[in-house]
Amino acid sequence: MAITGVLRPGHVAMRVLELKPALKHYVEVLGLVETGRDDKGRVYLKAWDEIDHHSVVLREADEAGLDYMGWKVASAATLQRLAAEVEASGLASDMAWIPAGEHPETGERFRFTVPTGHVMELYADKGKVGNGCGTDGPDINPDPWPDGLKGIAPSRFDHCLLYGDDLDGTVKLFTEVLGFSVAERVMTSADKNFMIAAFLSCSNKAHDVAFIRQPVKGKLHHASFELGSWEKVLRAADILSRTKTSIDLGPTRHGITRGETIYFFDPSGNRNEVFSGGYIFYPDKPAITWFDETLGPAIFYHDRQLNEAFLSVFT
Amino acid sequence: MAITGVLRPGHVAMRVLELKPALKHYVEVLGLVETGRDDKGRVYLKAWDEIDHHSVVLREADEAGLDYMGWKVASAATLQRLAAEVEASGLASDMAWIPAGEHPETGERFRFTVPTGHVMELYADKGKVGNGCGTDGPDINPDPWPDGLKGIAPSRFDHCLLYGDDLDGTVKLFTEVLGFSVAERVMTSADKNFMIAAFLSCSNKAHDVAFIRQPVKGKLHHASFELGSWEKVLRAADILSRTKTSIDLGPTRHGITRGETIYFFDPSGNRNEVFSGGYIFYPDKPAITWFDETLGPAIFYHDRQLNEAFLSVFT
Amino acid sequence: MAITGVLRPGHVAMRVLELKPALKHYVEVLGLVETGRDDKGRVYLKAWDEIDHHSVVLREADEAGLDYMGWKVASAATLQRLAAEVEASGLASDMAWIPAGEHPETGERFRFTVPTGHVMELYADKGKVGNGCGTDGPDINPDPWPDGLKGIAPSRFDHCLLYGDDLDGTVKLFTEVLGFSVAERVMTSADKNFMIAAFLSCSNKAHDVAFIRQPVKGKLHHASFELGSWEKVLRAADILSRTKTSIDLGPTRHGITRGETIYFFDPSGNRNEVFSGGYIFYPDKPAITWFDETLGPAIFYHDRQLNEAFLSVFT
Amino acid sequence: MAITGVLRPGHVAMRVLELKPALKHYVEVLGLVETGRDDKGRVYLKAWDEIDHHSVVLREADEAGLDYMGWKVASAATLQRLAAEVEASGLASDMAWIPAGEHPETGERFRFTVPTGHVMELYADKGKVGNGCGTDGPDINPDPWPDGLKGIAPSRFDHCLLYGDDLDGTVKLFTEVLGFSVAERVMTSADKNFMIAAFLSCSNKAHDVAFIRQPVKGKLHHASFELGSWEKVLRAADILSRTKTSIDLGPTRHGITRGETIYFFDPSGNRNEVFSGGYIFYPDKPAITWFDETLGPAIFYHDRQLNEAFLSVFT
Repeated sequence: MAITGVLRPGHVAMRVLELKPALKHYVEVLGLVETGRDDKGRVYLKAWDEIDHHSVVLREADEAGLDYMGWKVASAATLQRLAAEVEASGLASDMAWIPAGEHPETGERFRFTVPTGHVMELYADKGKVGNGCGTDGPDINPDPWPDGLKGIAPSRFDHCLLYGDDLDGTVKLFTEVLGFSVAERVMTSADKNFMIAAFLSCSNKAHDVAFIRQPVKGKLHHASFELGSWEKVLRAADILSRTKTSIDLGPTRHGITRGETIYFFDPSGNRNEVFSGGYIFYPDKPAITWFDETLGPAIFYHDRQLNEAFLSVFT
Repeated sequence: MAITGVLRPGHVAMRVLELKPALKHYVEVLGLVETGRDDKGRVYLKAWDEIDHHSVVLREADEAGLDYMGWKVASAATLQRLAAEVEASGLASDMAWIPAGEHPETGERFRFTVPTGHVMELYADKGKVGNGCGTDGPDINPDPWPDGLKGIAPSRFDHCLLYGDDLDGTVKLFTEVLGFSVAERVMTSADKNFMIAAFLSCSNKAHDVAFIRQPVKGKLHHASFELGSWEKVLRAADILSRTKTSIDLGPTRHGITRGETIYFFDPSGNRNEVFSGGYIFYPDKPAITWFDETLGPAIFYHDRQLNEAFLSVFT
Repeated sequence: MAITGVLRPGHVAMRVLELKPALKHYVEVLGLVETGRDDKGRVYLKAWDEIDHHSVVLREADEAGLDYMGWKVASAATLQRLAAEVEASGLASDMAWIPAGEHPETGERFRFTVPTGHVMELYADKGKVGNGCGTDGPDINPDPWPDGLKGIAPSRFDHCLLYGDDLDGTVKLFTEVLGFSVAERVMTSADKNFMIAAFLSCSNKAHDVAFIRQPVKGKLHHASFELGSWEKVLRAADILSRTKTSIDLGPTRHGITRGETIYFFDPSGNRNEVFSGGYIFYPDKPAITWFDETLGPAIFYHDRQLNEAFLSVFT
Repeated sequence: MAITGVLRPGHVAMRVLELKPALKHYVEVLGLVETGRDDKGRVYLKAWDEIDHHSVVLREADEAGLDYMGWKVASAATLQRLAAEVEASGLASDMAWIPAGEHPETGERFRFTVPTGHVMELYADKGKVGNGCGTDGPDINPDPWPDGLKGIAPSRFDHCLLYGDDLDGTVKLFTEVLGFSVAERVMTSADKNFMIAAFLSCSNKAHDVAFIRQPVKGKLHHASFELGSWEKVLRAADILSRTKTSIDLGPTRHGITRGETIYFFDPSGNRNEVFSGGYIFYPDKPAITWFDETLGPAIFYHDRQLNEAFLSVFT
């Protein structure tokens, strides 16, 4: 197999303060599709071009933020192997097996907490519901995009950017145990071995998850969704403004990953991103290094400076 | 490692009738960068965002066409393993080791011929020359694209579409031995198990190589290069028209892979493509199936019919 | 006044063989908005960014084609003056005043036939219905585009291309009496004073109407609608293919006017165009001249040759 | 004539602190073409798609800012008529005729100062140098854009936004004497007849000049240049960042005019804009009205709030 191990970020579970306005945001404005609810009150959603049952899980709670991210792995055997290796690494805590069916149409998940305090899961099975493109049947003679898209309509959940303290430990776990590559990283100039941010890829994407060192545990900076073009980023920005959704920053380009982006907030204050572009990453590509004195253009390539909210606002 | 085995199409070696007009085409119109020549008269080129020494090799010959495609693999050990597995498969012929240095800055290559008659190579090492984006040094604080791009300026060599007879044997070799997935395929309606085209991926791209069943051996339909957007496809079309380059078809969209495309010919009659778009492929995605009665929209989604040249003109 | 006289093409009245499929095409696929019907069975439509009551009029008939084009003029006084000048010119025939209200919400129209056999109308008044962008009231704090657009959703009816025999007479009437400029023209190489096509502007657009010399009277080549970008042309092409609408040609670029275009047919065989781009025209700009041996790139800049249907298929 | 009177903003004359860095900015970064210098040390430039000799005039001075804007009128007779009407209006001061040749290849100019303190000129003649698209000769079989464009490469100088005190007087002069229309305006909520900004059109563009009421005389907020697409705005932003040009704000969309925009500064602090999009304006379109409490989205549709620099920084 050319692509093995961890395949992709398969779901992000987030807490929202109230479900109703959250769903209005995620369904009508962002344009995800609701695919199910469970008896715990959780709502399951997916983006149009994802074929698996869900990629976003929302539940009501007193505080917004990240519950966990789930990673689809290549096979049941891979799941067992990676779970054992995570356990053996000594880098994870709070390990547990979540039984099949706890998420609808989803097999058992191996859950663990990484050194930055984020809860991660590995799983091998999730039911396939298709992307609605094939009018002649699933995966037969498909059109390039389905009729009836609503709102911003990203094609897929793409990655999360997370804030936490033990960046070195988390990067070690993702690279040495889970097989990720560091595509880009930010170091301090004072100590060129001191990493303040890491953008990690398990694929040909420039990042599947990213971490920034901050003196917190388990925090979410943003959950990001993929759009097909810079023009769709403009359209997203227009929809966000018309619906008076709180925009954080953009449209602009990231220096890191080259992505064309806009940041905004769901009604509970969780930051979302929709973006397009980037580059094709390969694991033999040397990591790109940025230094903290160029953090401005690294994050916001056009403004060339961070806005204060970027570092201080998270959930 | 999440990405293992065969990483990407690393080079395509093509024959041209005369080097001078070929270079005018590939350098000034297509916008590749010449990175070297050798004492056999071969010219080595790369696209701007490729970091390896070369991805296109041109040599003068009496007949245009494909000499071989080379595939970058993850490591020297992978190269040895895959070479042994290709040999053991009984599916390949004319196997040979090409010594390191036969291509400049390139390690030893394992060469073999697949059942459709195409010569393929695996290699693990090629010198890195960078993409010109980092003004502070290689891979330090890079800009998203370098100054001084010329012509159409694709970001990378992306894939080839090849014509040959023993499609089943070649697909078996690529999927069972080399770890590729069938992302999309075309079957006959009369016999739904009879495949007439296969689009194969070793990555998150919708295809890294494709084959169409035709009663020939080792033929090239086109070599394709990646552009970042549909607007860049228009710009390419404008440049092709201004330079009176022979355009085959487009701009249009492919049904297969969703790519936004234009086909054109180099002065020797080798077909080139530049394209944008597509989707993110994962190996757990069911193969998309097209049937021959929908081959029109499968290939040219807007015209919904093949032009005669598509099937009959190749090198 | 900086813009005076004839302001714009205000409506095109077309015959269709059956209303029901025609409306499915013009409303659901093209994405016009129905604004009214009258007791003669005519249906009135507009594009979203037009503020007047209608720009397209459809009626059922045994033969498809053009009934007439209507031109909005700057004022009632301008209408009287231009009507008198058309009459005095000796270039028009079948002149008549159509009473106010014959089209809903429309003042009196001065109707006449130009030398190529096309029926034209001038009018000064049409009721304003707005473009749906202002949520605080008409023309107050508007959003850039309204929610709820359907189908291709062009912003406005833009121009017609018409076929007829006495090109010289029609061009003389439009330029010398109605104040249009020849923005671009096609001449024969054999006789450089013999015009075979004229693209006429009464505005800053590269054309508001165009005529091609053909041995017919009063024929319609296409009615064209404006899109905002080349990406919207791709989206239009995708919608046309998904709805199996008959596409004539495109996406491509015109040499003449630089427009980015796709041609297709309504169910009755009337050709439509949606396009983007072009340039800002001023009446002091010298006319661009093409010669018949470059008619290929003039019409289809990328293919550089006419398809047979372009000249032979019209209604 | 359908387009009469004042045709377009034909030139903007600006003061810069040092010519050398200014030219590096306007030629290499913005991508204008130098077309001449005169014995007073002034440099004349044009954008690629302008056919007249110059549209930007730069001279060295101790203070940056606007010297004057020049307006091309339809004919010598129009020039005489409008000059007389400006004089008769009692709204202008400091009127003078500048002799032909004072600008190279330019006929006599009628200069006057409007109530907001800005110097304006009318002229009827300027030499034509073409846009470089016609390889077969001027205006013969042109390509849609010329080879060899540099930098951002806008197609034309489009408009200025100016700051001054007597907004009512200037608007009265432009609308009642010079034939402009108010396309959009900003009023106070407290007094709905009190105008704080006016966007004025003499064409089918949403604005050819705009004024904002500020307690100053003759100040320049920005000089704006036209790009063909939102993707070109991104490309402009990338070029500005790579060349470390000071970006003020953007890429974003204006609510007013719908334009897609980025603001930046020349080395002397004069603000430039490049933008795309907008809508087709007609003089019978009711003026769009914004109120001061929606000035945020009116100016920056995505951020929905003004940045402080927008109002306080000008030259």
